[in-house]
Amino acid sequence: MPDAALPSIDLFEAIHSARAQRRLSSDPVPEALITRVLDAAIRAPSAGNAQNWHFVVIRDAEQRRKAGALYRKASDIAEAVYRARSRPEHLTESQWQRMLTAGAYLWDHLGDAPVLLVPCLHQRDLPARDALAPAWRQRHDDERTYLDRIRGASIYPAVQNIILACRGLGLGTVITTNHLRIEAEFKAMLDIPDQVDTFALMPIGWPQGRFGPVNRRPLSEVAHADRWSNAWPG
Amino acid sequence: MPDAALPSIDLFEAIHSARAQRRLSSDPVPEALITRVLDAAIRAPSAGNAQNWHFVVIRDAEQRRKAGALYRKASDIAEAVYRARSRPEHLTESQWQRMLTAGAYLWDHLGDAPVLLVPCLHQRDLPARDALAPAWRQRHDDERTYLDRIRGASIYPAVQNIILACRGLGLGTVITTNHLRIEAEFKAMLDIPDQVDTFALMPIGWPQGRFGPVNRRPLSEVAHADRWSNAWPG
Repeated sequence: MPDAALPSIDLFEAIHSARAQRRLSSDPVPEALITRVLDAAIRAPSAGNAQNWHFVVIRDAEQRRKAGALYRKASDIAEAVYRARSRPEHLTESQWQRMLTAGAYLWDHLGDAPVLLVPCLHQRDLPARDALAPAWRQRHDDERTYLDRIRGASIYPAVQNIILACRGLGLGTVITTNHLRIEAEFKAMLDIPDQVDTFALMPIGWPQGRFGPVNRRPLSEVAHADRWSNAWPG
Repeated sequence: MPDAALPSIDLFEAIHSARAQRRLSSDPVPEALITRVLDAAIRAPSAGNAQNWHFVVIRDAEQRRKAGALYRKASDIAEAVYRARSRPEHLTESQWQRMLTAGAYLWDHLGDAPVLLVPCLHQRDLPARDALAPAWRQRHDDERTYLDRIRGASIYPAVQNIILACRGLGLGTVITTNHLRIEAEFKAMLDIPDQVDTFALMPIGWPQGRFGPVNRRPLSEVAHADRWSNAWPG
């Protein structure tokens, strides 16, 4: 539970001010703060409370340099796709350009962050197909399809706890996923086993930008009451 | 930002005490609290800040009855799979049985919760393949594979904000996904468009159980320093 020796914050203030922070100082972060962040991550729910998660924290300078170089390489692959993507309607052209510029900054500087955190999920979600009675094997295959879709439900809630815990401690972070385009190389660098998948690469450090408020599309556009056609009244 | 008229809580206390609540009172929940929860949901990050999310809130008694009946039907399909699943090593037999019992309770009572919340994601993540230059079409297909894997990163952080905001307001909730097994029927009941996918079905209400502490596998088993073989020292 809360440790009075470490900083904290009101829950709703954290949620409303936890901006994506892509420009981070290279100053070191005390180990106790990262432990606090990890300790928050593992309080998240996971399907069947299976907790098949792993978290790799990279602080070693040489490992960070390698991770940064792989992220740079993966981002080259991603770049064409980003260029083909169009601006979401709810962002102004200047907001969109600012986001692209900050993203491109991170392509070159990810490895400079003092801490890189890699949330992972073991593939241990399913009983072995062969161990099932024949009548259940079709169910197993249905289950595979279903689980592929919802595995995110067992790791991204922990990722959000990481984001909020960082905010509570005054640290900045952001979810990145470009490394997935060369995931095998990335996993090899960290000796991550074949049966473990990575879901994000999060730089963590003291933010150079300010926190919040986080502006979003209004609720009236995205919340519905009882059925799709009714806007939420609140 | 925080509204002084509504209850709140310390961030880390919320994270460490937001237990899954499957037994909920049927007492109504003031609309302002649900609006507060939704307002927290939309502060989460999403890939490219696209905010392609939608949230359907079911309060109407007849719609809740239908949702409860569909959840019951979907849970019959899920049951064989649950029975084939084995107890995670870190849970005792009694913890595992308690979880299964609470889950089975919810199969029959989901529709009794005063509020059901359905987080959704529009499929508007990609530029149309045909709009791309031929040289980019292979990239588009790679992108599809990549996005199928990480779409969860654009909705489950919002789901965790919902869980924490409920905790902050004294409300209980839990992530359920059984309805995905009959998602087409479920979407038809809510008039959700074809291009929109649902990612969870969350009952919300005043909890009959107590909050926290949330016990988990220890960090020493799941956190790694610099590479897989090194346990995190914290």
